[in-house]
Amino acid sequence: MSIAIIYPHRNVSDWIQALHTHGPDLKIEVWPDISAPEEVELALCWNHPDGSLQQFPNLKCISSLGAGINQLLDDDSRPTEIPLVRLVDDNLKQSMAEYVMAGVLEQFRRFKDYRQQQSEKRWAELEIPHISELCVGIMGCGEIGRFVGNKLADFGFTVRGWSRTQQDCGQFHIYAGDDELESFLSHANILVCLLPLTPKTENILNLQVFNQLPKNAFLINAARGSHLVEADLLSALESGQLSGALLDVCRQEPLSEQHPFWTHSKISITPHIASPTNPESAAEQIVDNYHRVLSGESLLNLVDIECGY
Amino acid sequence: MSIAIIYPHRNVSDWIQALHTHGPDLKIEVWPDISAPEEVELALCWNHPDGSLQQFPNLKCISSLGAGINQLLDDDSRPTEIPLVRLVDDNLKQSMAEYVMAGVLEQFRRFKDYRQQQSEKRWAELEIPHISELCVGIMGCGEIGRFVGNKLADFGFTVRGWSRTQQDCGQFHIYAGDDELESFLSHANILVCLLPLTPKTENILNLQVFNQLPKNAFLINAARGSHLVEADLLSALESGQLSGALLDVCRQEPLSEQHPFWTHSKISITPHIASPTNPESAAEQIVDNYHRVLSGESLLNLVDIECGY
Repeated sequence: MSIAIIYPHRNVSDWIQALHTHGPDLKIEVWPDISAPEEVELALCWNHPDGSLQQFPNLKCISSLGAGINQLLDDDSRPTEIPLVRLVDDNLKQSMAEYVMAGVLEQFRRFKDYRQQQSEKRWAELEIPHISELCVGIMGCGEIGRFVGNKLADFGFTVRGWSRTQQDCGQFHIYAGDDELESFLSHANILVCLLPLTPKTENILNLQVFNQLPKNAFLINAARGSHLVEADLLSALESGQLSGALLDVCRQEPLSEQHPFWTHSKISITPHIASPTNPESAAEQIVDNYHRVLSGESLLNLVDIECGY
Repeated sequence: MSIAIIYPHRNVSDWIQALHTHGPDLKIEVWPDISAPEEVELALCWNHPDGSLQQFPNLKCISSLGAGINQLLDDDSRPTEIPLVRLVDDNLKQSMAEYVMAGVLEQFRRFKDYRQQQSEKRWAELEIPHISELCVGIMGCGEIGRFVGNKLADFGFTVRGWSRTQQDCGQFHIYAGDDELESFLSHANILVCLLPLTPKTENILNLQVFNQLPKNAFLINAARGSHLVEADLLSALESGQLSGALLDVCRQEPLSEQHPFWTHSKISITPHIASPTNPESAAEQIVDNYHRVLSGESLLNLVDIECGY
């Protein structure tokens, strides 16, 4: 009985150490150096190569090493009878809230404009609305989106959410489904994408959506690069429909050197750091799930394959 | 009976309109065009010229048009028997919390470093501590400082305060007086100055204080320019004791074109916009105080001249 970590091009010693803290006797092997594939019952995956899961004949559970599972769903060779789980971690939520709050406040209080003024040695106050007049629209109101939205609302922003299905989270209104997308978008001065990547949400950040936002809206994408139609963002920035964008994710990561996003004055890029998984805080639920695999108990954070999250 | 507004070089029509909303019958005159100085019972001041208050023989109250009153205290010709009040406004507190949170998050989540990386087309994750490991030290724990500190603590930061006198605000520990300054400073990874400007606090942001902070600490000054010894900031940045600074205030405003702060890569400048007074939200307490002046009731937000705030 063992656990396999499949996380190419990364030193996973911090993961091994964190897992051993919660299960000192665990046998952990690191792909591609798996000495006994038949012993592997749990595979921990991030950026796993397609096909790499087929070598384990006794696999009982596949766990993403993050909140997203789109890469696992996209692997056609993945054994579909094996249950899939993902990480739901308070630290992931907190870290995402920090990133979104930093981006929203930077835009709201015009820190980027003031940096520009500083470079011109200009001392001039710029107008801003009252915080309650600025509506932040959260696309995707799962565990992370609701947490982020509540933090923004606590701080004083007007928040509205949009989700696939109707739900109520108390602190802010959540619009539901395709029918209510237009109403949701019409209010969002800052649009924050925290959606899971599924066939239904791929390319959702497109010109049609941007054109339904208030003029000069700002985009924050901290979900997945494939949510965004890149050419449409460039058009919307060119026309002034969008005033700017903060992107933590790109269709191709790292962003290629020739990519126009790097040098666009209205685009800020961060290298997929909004919500990194922290081995120390995530290890406990992984070890817990491993014990559940062995004892046949129900798994934590099981993915609904139909929904894609 | 009238109110005089003394606010040089500014169109005060928004102030007049806001005051008339709460007191439609108020007689308001704008310095220097005062037709009947003997009628003036309340003077509203911001950047008032020294001596300008001596022309009102029947003055009963002087109100600052902001939270700070150092300019009034510095005017040796001010009639000292007249009570002095200042503005305490929820919007001032909220606006300051937004500014400080924006500055703290920008520093914590390394947005400025990521902008630099973007300019070099570098895609690389930078290390950050867990939010609870970052201590924000608030110098000055009056109404504004306590509000800001509580907002930061709510969000997850470790917060410690420092104040002239012992007090307890529940959510974070407040160190008191000169004896506890060193302990306070030894923890503060980000030092936020929100002190009133008094003879005791002038030049308090100096090399001796910086050297008691943890290595690589960051400074945010959103109080008054004269709190900071500018040459000492440059030394501390040069030595690496401080990693950077965000300054909303300067000794001379606007900052002169030749000033080295404009072009220093580790200094961010904003033009005294952290917490602008909003006439709409401040007018009510001014009109309320005016009625108290007329009826002889006790005044709101009376300044303790000894303390300087």
